[in-house]
Amino acid sequence: MARTALWTAIFEMLESDIEAGHYPSGGKLPTEAQLANRFGVNRHTVRRALSALADKGVVHARRGAGVFVTQASTDYPLGQRVRFHQNLLEAGRTPRRKMLITETRLADASEAEALDLRPNSKVKVCEGLSFADDAAIAMFRSVFPEQRFPNLFDDLKVNNSVTAALKAAGVDDYTRQQTRINALPASPTLATHLQVKAGVPVLRTTSVNVDRDGTPVEFGKTWFAGDRVTLTLTPDDG
Amino acid sequence: MARTALWTAIFEMLESDIEAGHYPSGGKLPTEAQLANRFGVNRHTVRRALSALADKGVVHARRGAGVFVTQASTDYPLGQRVRFHQNLLEAGRTPRRKMLITETRLADASEAEALDLRPNSKVKVCEGLSFADDAAIAMFRSVFPEQRFPNLFDDLKVNNSVTAALKAAGVDDYTRQQTRINALPASPTLATHLQVKAGVPVLRTTSVNVDRDGTPVEFGKTWFAGDRVTLTLTPDDG
Repeated sequence: MARTALWTAIFEMLESDIEAGHYPSGGKLPTEAQLANRFGVNRHTVRRALSALADKGVVHARRGAGVFVTQASTDYPLGQRVRFHQNLLEAGRTPRRKMLITETRLADASEAEALDLRPNSKVKVCEGLSFADDAAIAMFRSVFPEQRFPNLFDDLKVNNSVTAALKAAGVDDYTRQQTRINALPASPTLATHLQVKAGVPVLRTTSVNVDRDGTPVEFGKTWFAGDRVTLTLTPDDG
Repeated sequence: MARTALWTAIFEMLESDIEAGHYPSGGKLPTEAQLANRFGVNRHTVRRALSALADKGVVHARRGAGVFVTQASTDYPLGQRVRFHQNLLEAGRTPRRKMLITETRLADASEAEALDLRPNSKVKVCEGLSFADDAAIAMFRSVFPEQRFPNLFDDLKVNNSVTAALKAAGVDDYTRQQTRINALPASPTLATHLQVKAGVPVLRTTSVNVDRDGTPVEFGKTWFAGDRVTLTLTPDDG
């Protein structure tokens, strides 16, 4: 068997071991020397297989500590209609949201601009956490015009769904107008909520949802734990 | 004037100072005390204005060092057709690409899967850097099936455009099939190329481009410097 086929075979064996849960998510792999022994190959061949697994995002090396199985990442589709519960159910995860704060206050400059409000308009703000299978995957802040949605918080209490609460206020449908995506380091507060270390990469989406008439109904920011979520974009989702 | 109007006014003055280049991109703002003096207000009011500027991404605080003007970020649209040069020109930037490596080699497992190739198929690989106004904003790796594009490197040399090189091989049009977006820490190599510190957040897109028949023609990964690029997604781009 040529060496090329050999490392590919080891790549596939390790990958299926990981998929089977033999090396659990977040756990450490055996050392290169141990793997070389197990497979009866030299360390160069093991290294090539590990490198291909790392390229695929299945494992990652931590300097001086070894090679670890990457936590399974949740796919989160960035479709034109973003529905948190539905998205996670489709990804085979159990979704849960926990509200941290609901408050009514004056819009700041960026909120007023995004929602097309006059200065000193009031907004209703919800901040909370999103969980997939009990792991916190994101923190969100949603900002709504108070004048249009005076009963938003009561409506949200009914079934904890923004879609349902907006519907109760007469918004049958809403779509993302534009989404902006950044990578930035986790702030200390965010790190505490997501149970990651401050400074680790976070994916932030900023979006404005509009009703059928194109009027902004929600200005939302979501901070996703970078190692737990992959945003996906498929033309058909539009 | 109510205090709300006051911090908003200071927010707007600072923002227009920054836009006018009075405080340059990447530079440090005066201290809260200095700004409070300049505007004749208390530090609480200054802090509220700075906080709104930070929320908007115009400035950012570095612990113990002060508040800095955030480097102007380049908007990079994630449309169905991704054309590097055109995207950057539309964003008002001067685009440039520098090829680092071109090589023909065997596909690794993830490349073979993405391009729908048989094991041990050969691929042509280009790695390089993308610049906007002379700042490196991204590193890219594009992988093409060798069998279909045997003259790719010669075609690329003609005008340094993937679109033109694929056209020379008979691919009139190609579109993104799916794009996956992650946030991850910059590896040492990537950090060197992008001139950032190792570990800073990087946006990585992984995408497969297909021809009109849905056959994969390119498997691409791009690593964007998180503080220099905002990926944007507009339904109309699709």
